[in-house]
Amino acid sequence: MSNTRSYAALSATTPLEPFSFDRRAPRPDDVAIEILYCGVCHSDLHFVRDDWGFSTYPVVPGHEIVGRVTAVGDKVEGFKVGEIVGVGCMVDSCRHCEACERGLEQYCLEGFTMTYGSPDRHDGTTTQGGYSDKIVVSERFVVHMPEGIDLKSAAPILCAGITTYSPLKHHGVKAGHKIGVIGMGGLGHMGVKLAKALGAEVTLFTRSQSKVAEAKHQGADHVVVSTDEAQMEAVAGTFDFMLDTIPVQHDLNPYLKALKFDGTHILVGLIEPIEPAIHSFELVFKRRVVAGSLIGGLPETQELLDFCAEHGIGCDVEVIDIQNINEAFERMQKGDVKYRFVIDMQSLKNAA
Amino acid sequence: MSNTRSYAALSATTPLEPFSFDRRAPRPDDVAIEILYCGVCHSDLHFVRDDWGFSTYPVVPGHEIVGRVTAVGDKVEGFKVGEIVGVGCMVDSCRHCEACERGLEQYCLEGFTMTYGSPDRHDGTTTQGGYSDKIVVSERFVVHMPEGIDLKSAAPILCAGITTYSPLKHHGVKAGHKIGVIGMGGLGHMGVKLAKALGAEVTLFTRSQSKVAEAKHQGADHVVVSTDEAQMEAVAGTFDFMLDTIPVQHDLNPYLKALKFDGTHILVGLIEPIEPAIHSFELVFKRRVVAGSLIGGLPETQELLDFCAEHGIGCDVEVIDIQNINEAFERMQKGDVKYRFVIDMQSLKNAA
Repeated sequence: MSNTRSYAALSATTPLEPFSFDRRAPRPDDVAIEILYCGVCHSDLHFVRDDWGFSTYPVVPGHEIVGRVTAVGDKVEGFKVGEIVGVGCMVDSCRHCEACERGLEQYCLEGFTMTYGSPDRHDGTTTQGGYSDKIVVSERFVVHMPEGIDLKSAAPILCAGITTYSPLKHHGVKAGHKIGVIGMGGLGHMGVKLAKALGAEVTLFTRSQSKVAEAKHQGADHVVVSTDEAQMEAVAGTFDFMLDTIPVQHDLNPYLKALKFDGTHILVGLIEPIEPAIHSFELVFKRRVVAGSLIGGLPETQELLDFCAEHGIGCDVEVIDIQNINEAFERMQKGDVKYRFVIDMQSLKNAA
Repeated sequence: MSNTRSYAALSATTPLEPFSFDRRAPRPDDVAIEILYCGVCHSDLHFVRDDWGFSTYPVVPGHEIVGRVTAVGDKVEGFKVGEIVGVGCMVDSCRHCEACERGLEQYCLEGFTMTYGSPDRHDGTTTQGGYSDKIVVSERFVVHMPEGIDLKSAAPILCAGITTYSPLKHHGVKAGHKIGVIGMGGLGHMGVKLAKALGAEVTLFTRSQSKVAEAKHQGADHVVVSTDEAQMEAVAGTFDFMLDTIPVQHDLNPYLKALKFDGTHILVGLIEPIEPAIHSFELVFKRRVVAGSLIGGLPETQELLDFCAEHGIGCDVEVIDIQNINEAFERMQKGDVKYRFVIDMQSLKNAA
């Protein structure tokens, strides 16, 4: 067991605060990691506030983890001490179901083990995440950070990046396709970069005229202000795909209209339920599809990191000290971040 | 021009009644057809009652037409006088867009010409359907009735059949797949037969215990009474596809739960809008898809007719005289038909 320093929420209504707990000693297949950076995902805030109703406390959030290997179990073959690695949203799964065998651990038929807030499959303890100085994870759920990648910009690739990349790859987005990316947050700006790197022609949909220049700066070929009916009308029937990253309820119908026949609307945000209601004729009359997608599996996450290193893609981040996490949560809730806070974990060590 | 006897609705509130009008003389690419049978689709009733708000009057309904060729235009190459042919829901389209070039005329980017109630693309007259003794249609929109097929049972294949077959083929339903067919009406019973013939394992979902035996008689391997929560729970996560033929609003979420990860819910009914609302987590957490589909193109309709002839598949029909059409509409609205009324057009000639 090793004592671990972290920031945790002790309840749904209290701020994050310093917290100590023990990490397990590495099992034979485990990799022990000293955490260097951890991204701050909106899910962290949802979980801390118990927005989904299944949170447990204390909880140490954080599932965009980059760190250095400090020890490996006897049976670990893929990782060595000193190597820089990553851990995303999952730390375990059943490993034998159809989904796991296909490297789609996020769809594990028995449910995957979340990086924080899940019962460990072996000892039943509750998993704790990356707002901490170290973590111990089975090697199947650890990825290699490619040479030369910027570590702090790469941390959010483990969630925001893979969440957008996985459906783009699954649906075969490539050169010649026109794709709309809806929303210009952490996921949206990664969606723009990744769809561009895959060769597609990218249009960013935003409600805000003020984001037009920024969207083009991020690489969008075109920008449509979705509140402008004339602009929406002008793009009706022109897109092969929509990548919908909006995390709150919104009307899908205007975006469905913007799809070609056989077009696909990819939903990665949890909008509960989908209201205003979808019009069936937007689907039926044009053979359109609404498709969900959840993060991504481990092989695809590794593929994405290599792809990002090759194409020089990273998340735009604002690095913070962990002592400022509560302020960062407040700013994130107001949308006041471009585009991801990343905690420099050195700050945890610097604290008294 | 040739005088045509028919039954038409003169308004949204009056019964169908005998009606005479002129069909055009065949154009160079036209096939003139003496109608033998015409299926009675629920859409006919919707259009007659102006349920969709775009009906025109007088309207002669009918888009499940089987007849004999009586004349062909100079440039017709594929049809000969005396041949038995079919006409479905479409009689024209732009013919040059991406959809038309792919034989997907139902998704014509300029909109297809409906068999009744649409403006003809050449002379602007309103098209009139198959509750009549003859029709004139461009050969591109005429299909061959295969040798040996039962003509009255084949008529509804042109709408109810192709509406279910097209998405099964598009999504690649085949042996090894488990598919749920939701609803046991005209479309549903054809869905069961066609999915079985394609090799899939078929489960019929019905709200009514009384339809269990009938569903098995139609070829369903299993039947789930959807109002029985225990039965629904037992099939959670087990289907590759759902073919949803229910034409009225209903909750998709219990059926989404019954899909495997990567499963597809195929919607062919117009339910406006989709309420109760879809839960995004049913899509996102399992990469499930909701997909629309509309009738089918001409090449696929011909393929289906040949497939039905080969597999001995027809629609279960109740043959009626056209004089009984208003009573048939009433019975259809009450669900009192197994599974399709088909008008024997001889009855129109027999009338005084």
